[in-house]
Amino acid sequence: MPIRIPVILTGYGNVGKAFVRLIHEKAEYCRRRYGLDFELAAVLRRSGGWVPEGDSLEALAETAGQALESRPGWRPGLRLEAVFERHPPGVLADCTPSNLKTGEPQLAFFHAALDRGWHIAAASKGALCVDFRGLMSKARVRGVALKFSGATAAALPTLDLATVSLAGAVILGIEGILTGATNLILGRLEAGISFDAALKEAQAKGIVEPDPSLDIDGWDTAVKILLLANAAAGLELSLDEIAVEGIRHVSAERLVRARAEGRSIKLIGRLTRSEAGIKADVGPRAIEPSHPLFGFNGTTKGVAFTTDSLGTITVSGGKSGPFGTAASVLKDIINIYC
Amino acid sequence: MPIRIPVILTGYGNVGKAFVRLIHEKAEYCRRRYGLDFELAAVLRRSGGWVPEGDSLEALAETAGQALESRPGWRPGLRLEAVFERHPPGVLADCTPSNLKTGEPQLAFFHAALDRGWHIAAASKGALCVDFRGLMSKARVRGVALKFSGATAAALPTLDLATVSLAGAVILGIEGILTGATNLILGRLEAGISFDAALKEAQAKGIVEPDPSLDIDGWDTAVKILLLANAAAGLELSLDEIAVEGIRHVSAERLVRARAEGRSIKLIGRLTRSEAGIKADVGPRAIEPSHPLFGFNGTTKGVAFTTDSLGTITVSGGKSGPFGTAASVLKDIINIYC
Repeated sequence: MPIRIPVILTGYGNVGKAFVRLIHEKAEYCRRRYGLDFELAAVLRRSGGWVPEGDSLEALAETAGQALESRPGWRPGLRLEAVFERHPPGVLADCTPSNLKTGEPQLAFFHAALDRGWHIAAASKGALCVDFRGLMSKARVRGVALKFSGATAAALPTLDLATVSLAGAVILGIEGILTGATNLILGRLEAGISFDAALKEAQAKGIVEPDPSLDIDGWDTAVKILLLANAAAGLELSLDEIAVEGIRHVSAERLVRARAEGRSIKLIGRLTRSEAGIKADVGPRAIEPSHPLFGFNGTTKGVAFTTDSLGTITVSGGKSGPFGTAASVLKDIINIYC
Repeated sequence: MPIRIPVILTGYGNVGKAFVRLIHEKAEYCRRRYGLDFELAAVLRRSGGWVPEGDSLEALAETAGQALESRPGWRPGLRLEAVFERHPPGVLADCTPSNLKTGEPQLAFFHAALDRGWHIAAASKGALCVDFRGLMSKARVRGVALKFSGATAAALPTLDLATVSLAGAVILGIEGILTGATNLILGRLEAGISFDAALKEAQAKGIVEPDPSLDIDGWDTAVKILLLANAAAGLELSLDEIAVEGIRHVSAERLVRARAEGRSIKLIGRLTRSEAGIKADVGPRAIEPSHPLFGFNGTTKGVAFTTDSLGTITVSGGKSGPFGTAASVLKDIINIYC
C-alpha cells in the first residue's frame, strides 16, 4: 500500500503552478516506483488558500491558467495553522518568491511547519539565507527534514551530490555557474544583444527572479554558494562574508575580447578552503578552455566540487525554468520519504 | 556517541589496501562528521584472513606494502563464517577482483553476508553481473543495503546521482565514458603511442582490471551500463542483451582522421529507452564538440543522464585509481548508515 503524504504548497507563481502539474502527472509513477501517494492538502497564498474540497488536484492541474482566487476550492483568509490542524504531518513544498533581506514569507511558514513536525522542501532562498542555523537546528531537534534543492540550482544536482555522492570526502573547493539567467545574458551580450533585450529574453524563459537584481547583481549565485558552503561543506558562512560582484558592468567589448583570446567570461561563485582559511566570492571571471566550467553556455549551469579523496567532480545541465525547479522540489520530497 | 560499525574487507589488492589506509586516515573525520566508528573486523583472502587481534588497523594501514600473510594478525584458513559469528552485523566492503563469468569469489561472499544480515558495499562487478536480481531481492527481503558505487565508475557519481539526485524523474537515456583505462588508451593511440605501450601506461596507473580484456573489449563499460540500467532505470537487462565492441580494432589512423574532422572517438556505453523499446550498446563512437561527453580526455570519465522532468544532467571527473575506488566504497558505507 502506498504511503499517503499530505503536501501543502506555499506560493502559486510559475514554480508553484508547475509543481501542481508535476505531482498530478507523476502521481501514478510516484505510487508505483516509490510507494508514495501525494495528497495536495492546500495551496497557500498571502490572501488565503485553496483546498481540494469542492475542487480537486486534477481540476487544478488541468486549469493552471485560471486564478486560484476564482476557483471553487478558494478559501479567503485561510491560514497555514488551520491546514496543519486538519492533517497529519507531511511536507511543506515551498515555492514562494525569495526576499533575501527579510526571509519572508517563508521564514514564518518554515518555523510554523517545523514546530508542527512537517518536513520542508524549499525552492525559495530567503528564509535559508536569513536564518540558516536556526532553521536547520530546529529541523534537527524536531527530527524532520529541511531540504532545499530548489534553492540551490534546482534541476542541477548540487546539494544532494555534495552530501550523498561525495559522502566521506572533504570538500576543498566549489566553483559554479549557478545562475542560468546571468549565463544566458552574458552569452547574448557577447553576441551583440543589448543588456535590456538580453534580460527580457531571460525573463521570457521564466528563469529570472521576480526582482531581477537578485540575479544580475550576483546575489542568486552568492546565496547558492552560501547554502552549499553551510549545508555541504559544513561551514557557517553568512552572506556578508561573500564578496559579490554581478554582471551589470561587464561590457560587450570585454566579452568579445575575452572570446578573441580563447577565453570566456562567466559569472562564477567560488568557495575555497585552504590552510589560509575560507574564501567565498562571486564575480565575472575570464576562464580558459581547460577550466571545468568552460563551454557551459546559454542557460546551462554547472558546478565543480574539489575534494580530498574523490577528486574533482563536475556536474552540469538540468532543466531550467519553473518545471525544472518544481521537479527538484519533488525530488527532495521523494528523498525525504525514501 | 559514535555508532560502532564492524567492517569486513574481502580482497587485499590495490583497492583493498587503499581502503584500509582510507578508513584509518578518515577515522576521526567519520566519527566527528557522521558519528560512525569503523572497526575493521577482518580482511579476507582466499587462503585465510587477517584479524586485528595481536595486530591493528593502524599497524596494517601504515605497512600496506607488507604481505598480509606474514603479519601477526594473519590466520591461515580463516573463513567468512567464523568472522560473522564473532561480530554483530555490519558491512562487507568488497574489493575482490571481478570475474564476470562465475561472479566468484564475491557471489558466495555476498549471499553469505546477506543471509547473516550484513550490508554490502561492493567494488567488484562479477556477482552483480551474474545474479543481480537474486542478490537485490535477497537484500530487500533481509532489509539490508547492497550498494555498488565502486562497481559503477567508482569516484564518478553514477548510481547515487541516478537514484537520489534524479529521484522522481524517468531516465530516458544514459550515455557514458565509463572506463578510464580505455579513454586513456584511445588518447595515447591518437598521440601516436602503440597499443601495447598505452596499455602498459594505463596499467602503471592501477586503473586496468587484472584481466585487461575486461576493459579493452568493452566489458567493463558494458557491466556499468547494465548495473545503471537495472539499478537506476528500473530495467531487467542481462549482459547478453548489450551489443559490445571494444577498442582493440580502433586504428590510430581512424583516431587522427576523426580529430582532423573536429570529432573525437570515445568508447561509449549507451542505454536508450523509447517507444521502440530498450537499446543498450557499447562501442567506439566519433562524437561532435556539441556532445556532452566531448572533451573528457585522459582517465576522465563522464556520464550524461537524459530524463523527462529534470532535463539532461552530465557528471564528470572523480579520482581514478585504487584510492578513488576505495573512497567510493567508503561513500557507500556512510550512505548506508546516515
